[in-house]
Amino acid sequence: MRFLSEEESAALITEEIAFDAVREALIAATTGQTFPAVFGHGTDPGNRFTVKSGASAELAGVKVGSFWPGNDAKGMPRHNSTILLLDQETGRTAAVIEAGKVNAFRTAAADAVAADVLARRDATTLAIFGTGHQALYECVAVSKVRDLESVQVVARSADRGERFVELLSSKGLRAQLSTAQDACQADIIVTATTSRAPLFDADWVRPGTHVASMGSDARGKQELPPELLAKARLFCDLPEQSVQIGEMQHAIDATGLTALGDVLTGKAEGRVADDDITVFDSSGIALQDLYVAVELLRR
Amino acid sequence: MRFLSEEESAALITEEIAFDAVREALIAATTGQTFPAVFGHGTDPGNRFTVKSGASAELAGVKVGSFWPGNDAKGMPRHNSTILLLDQETGRTAAVIEAGKVNAFRTAAADAVAADVLARRDATTLAIFGTGHQALYECVAVSKVRDLESVQVVARSADRGERFVELLSSKGLRAQLSTAQDACQADIIVTATTSRAPLFDADWVRPGTHVASMGSDARGKQELPPELLAKARLFCDLPEQSVQIGEMQHAIDATGLTALGDVLTGKAEGRVADDDITVFDSSGIALQDLYVAVELLRR
Repeated sequence: MRFLSEEESAALITEEIAFDAVREALIAATTGQTFPAVFGHGTDPGNRFTVKSGASAELAGVKVGSFWPGNDAKGMPRHNSTILLLDQETGRTAAVIEAGKVNAFRTAAADAVAADVLARRDATTLAIFGTGHQALYECVAVSKVRDLESVQVVARSADRGERFVELLSSKGLRAQLSTAQDACQADIIVTATTSRAPLFDADWVRPGTHVASMGSDARGKQELPPELLAKARLFCDLPEQSVQIGEMQHAIDATGLTALGDVLTGKAEGRVADDDITVFDSSGIALQDLYVAVELLRR
Repeated sequence: MRFLSEEESAALITEEIAFDAVREALIAATTGQTFPAVFGHGTDPGNRFTVKSGASAELAGVKVGSFWPGNDAKGMPRHNSTILLLDQETGRTAAVIEAGKVNAFRTAAADAVAADVLARRDATTLAIFGTGHQALYECVAVSKVRDLESVQVVARSADRGERFVELLSSKGLRAQLSTAQDACQADIIVTATTSRAPLFDADWVRPGTHVASMGSDARGKQELPPELLAKARLFCDLPEQSVQIGEMQHAIDATGLTALGDVLTGKAEGRVADDDITVFDSSGIALQDLYVAVELLRR
């Protein structure tokens, strides 16, 4: 059995590795299997973990993602992740990868793959809702697929917002604090929050915008107004999961919801017109983790 | 992160460790949580894996059990297992234990714990349905809680049956091939098969018998006649799972079904009279694996 520690996997992962592996995974998801996600908790029910698993023509395995809110106070990341790859010849565990940092890259990579194929070619402005750990990875990942001139940061706390603007600057991204309404003028909107209600009004979003909801990954979570979903072209990583635990649980009509993998292979249309509003919902699937894991093991 | 290889965990495990840890786990299950089991498969859908997870006041984690039927032809065990313990302070993976052989011990231990508390004190005969890998562990585990004078082996193939009788003899157990009806005269009956239909008639079972169904752990699997369940006192590892994927999915009325943990703590009655028929259904829960894992790590 091979093992990669958190330190090893964190040292190996890059936006490019994550982008390519996640792109492959999203395509594999259209023919592969994603098994039901499990929502568990620790001895303290406030500490939560999810177990996701999947199989494709190449691989199968399990990802355990944990969310320990109290880690914040200890200066440790609240999210951690462990990936377990199964040997397809024997069923034994072929590799275990600690993948806390990798998880942030892989989650952001899905939104980058989606923005790459769905956002307008000439998109130059990004709005980010949320200033948490993941939000930074989202901005950097999107900046790799479009030449961003500015990032509008929508923060609940001015303090956290200011620190996040500085953090983005340190990554070479020109950023500023913004109201939700002003931010919605951006070409690309990414929501990376733990919200349980829409973060903005559907009317604030201009024709031609690409919107990505990253935060909604459990029942009751919600970041986007249902009115926006009603007038947008809808995409996601995995339709059956997106309507269960993703943003699409709040869609009045999700019949047009398309797997991004089908757009990537040309089986389905993506953006058709410059004034389309496109929405991508990522609730996260194990195949993303598994394909990234395989790529890390190769290196 | 700590790691125990298959070789290490196999060298450490004993019937006694498994018995004590599984007993503790069955008690913990009555106040802890068992999260929904996931049934997945490999790139070849004939290769299957299950993901089980749970939490108690002491621990939480995940067990991935795999069943690769083709391993048989390669002289390798078809069942493999990996246990992942979560650090309750941080949510990170505290330990990974390869537990293929351990899994056989822990499964048999649940039936031994049940037989210990539910079978008549003076039970001396055992019937075993099935001659597979797991059946041997079942016989040895039960022999640790009752002085067995003989083991009746019910085999579908005489060849396999003969080999199994020899195997039992090599473990010091006096065994012989038997018909299903004759075997049902035993004081303790254990079924360890992949059956999807009852293995014997309810009328063949005498008053006072203890019956354990080990094999039923998925929808559609069945080893016992529903008429037996209707006249027996019913016990299991986890009632909500037993009626979903265990033997109790076939019970006409499972309202009296009792968690063995409640019997172990004295909260519920076990065997009340010498002529009670008691039935124990084990569909297998993650806490069993997690408590055994902790105990192995201690050594």
